[in-house]
Amino acid sequence: MRSVCVVGLGLIGGSVLRAAAAAGRTVFGTAGAEEDVHGALADGFTVVDVDSALRRAAAEDALVVIAVPLTAVDAVLRKISDLAPECALTDVVSVKGPVADAVARYAPNTRFAGGHPMAGKSESGWQASTARLFADAAWVVTADEDTELPAWREAAQLALDCGAAVVPTTSSEHDAAVARISHLPHVLAAVLAACGADGGPLAMALAAGSFADGTRVASSRPELVLAMCEGNRSALLAAVDDALGKLGAARGALASTGALGATVRAGHVGRAAYETHRAAANARAMVDLTGADPFEELRLIGAQGGRIVGFDGDMAVAALPVLPD
Amino acid sequence: MRSVCVVGLGLIGGSVLRAAAAAGRTVFGTAGAEEDVHGALADGFTVVDVDSALRRAAAEDALVVIAVPLTAVDAVLRKISDLAPECALTDVVSVKGPVADAVARYAPNTRFAGGHPMAGKSESGWQASTARLFADAAWVVTADEDTELPAWREAAQLALDCGAAVVPTTSSEHDAAVARISHLPHVLAAVLAACGADGGPLAMALAAGSFADGTRVASSRPELVLAMCEGNRSALLAAVDDALGKLGAARGALASTGALGATVRAGHVGRAAYETHRAAANARAMVDLTGADPFEELRLIGAQGGRIVGFDGDMAVAALPVLPD
Repeated sequence: MRSVCVVGLGLIGGSVLRAAAAAGRTVFGTAGAEEDVHGALADGFTVVDVDSALRRAAAEDALVVIAVPLTAVDAVLRKISDLAPECALTDVVSVKGPVADAVARYAPNTRFAGGHPMAGKSESGWQASTARLFADAAWVVTADEDTELPAWREAAQLALDCGAAVVPTTSSEHDAAVARISHLPHVLAAVLAACGADGGPLAMALAAGSFADGTRVASSRPELVLAMCEGNRSALLAAVDDALGKLGAARGALASTGALGATVRAGHVGRAAYETHRAAANARAMVDLTGADPFEELRLIGAQGGRIVGFDGDMAVAALPVLPD
Repeated sequence: MRSVCVVGLGLIGGSVLRAAAAAGRTVFGTAGAEEDVHGALADGFTVVDVDSALRRAAAEDALVVIAVPLTAVDAVLRKISDLAPECALTDVVSVKGPVADAVARYAPNTRFAGGHPMAGKSESGWQASTARLFADAAWVVTADEDTELPAWREAAQLALDCGAAVVPTTSSEHDAAVARISHLPHVLAAVLAACGADGGPLAMALAAGSFADGTRVASSRPELVLAMCEGNRSALLAAVDDALGKLGAARGALASTGALGATVRAGHVGRAAYETHRAAANARAMVDLTGADPFEELRLIGAQGGRIVGFDGDMAVAALPVLPD
């Protein structure tokens, strides 16, 4: 198996390094933050400066994993373009369109497929990393118009080796989906927390379960939330507009007839869709990767809420949720 | 101690009956739902028809507790006006302004102070009731312009007997506060759940913690959510307008400069205010109920996020959160 070079050894990058090593792959890394470097070295991993890491990656044709914040991606790509311009490349950044654009601009000769593991925790840095972080998680690997199958398989295999299941989709579909289920929740939690606090100490004294749940993620570090949300600006804008439209409709109904039934019932149906998806049994399906357009089939798996759970030769093994009619 | 007559033996009314009995008070009840009647009888409580219950309440000058949905309050008050027109009266309905208005209209001679215990669970009915439901919960007892101190003390003593602490405030302050910390969370959870589900199976497959937390209360029974939210229409409208304004500001910032800092930081501060309040130590204070305007002092306790935790003769013992500067 190809060795793995992880650039950035925080929570996600560190966990990739650990998980890939646990899967038996040769791993090495590089990081800017001194405490992450020291932590990884102390735990027995190979950590070198970024130039040495990328030179070694080029020499042994390693898979390079970009695990730095979106704002640092361009600089890493320029380094890659200099030192490992044709490497197999993926990333674990939470937005996919901007990363794909940056790769096309700065490192167009890499064999790239974008990635996003849907896993995390509130702590950050190497110290919080764990080889089990991705167990049973969804891990998006992007299949865009210009993605090459070998590059996609490299990134997908890494996800599988880390214990995750692969969700194939395009960068733009990914960004639209996470805007709705990850970034919009942060924006609405912030709005709710501010509205509640505006009610003063009396409101805080009366607040209980619904407020506590609805504002939990507002306790996340603002820098991390901002990097995530602002990096997905155009997709988040569409999601916020959808929420504004729905909230405005609720406002109008409450003001005119006093009836919130349409809002509350649509929300109940939406939550039920989520619970149904989580509880669904899975059916197996096979995708022949030697077919005419395997990406079309793979993207369809993703669009149906399915996952790739393994490879069997040139076949991808998919698990598809079996939803009630 | 005055005996307690509970009208309505669902989750909240049933728990009041149990808790008041556990505190050593003579209790009896009445209920419309047959399974609640049978359940309470089977558990050894005295349950009679509503006319008999109110006649007995009048005869022994019991405290009557209205524990029916808001939509059934008017009918109960008409009965009270007929059969126990001067009784000591409180309620456990989740909005206070509409109940106070109904009491003024239908049963103006009762000795009334409104109540709202901030406790609940997802199950409903007598079978879900428990004497411990209100342990350490906040229980609002309203102190409006026309509230009489003896009526307020009766309602407050019931809350204390049930294991709760009393939050004194006006009906309108209560309704404004719960609109922000209880009803708005339900509206935003419904909006978020619908926005997420609109993202289709891919979005549902990628949804994790932030979406799960932000939509949890959208799984509540729509009838209960609607009764609660629609019953607090005018205060909820103000809270929704506040949320629309804040979400619109986020939208504007995202569209113009791409910066969500103001939104995210205000949310972080709001959540921190909630966490600080919950973690705060308490200082004791005493309110002399024989003073010139004890309600002014009591309302100030509530406005500061404090609670009345007991009576000592004609003094109310208050616990006030000690917040950092």
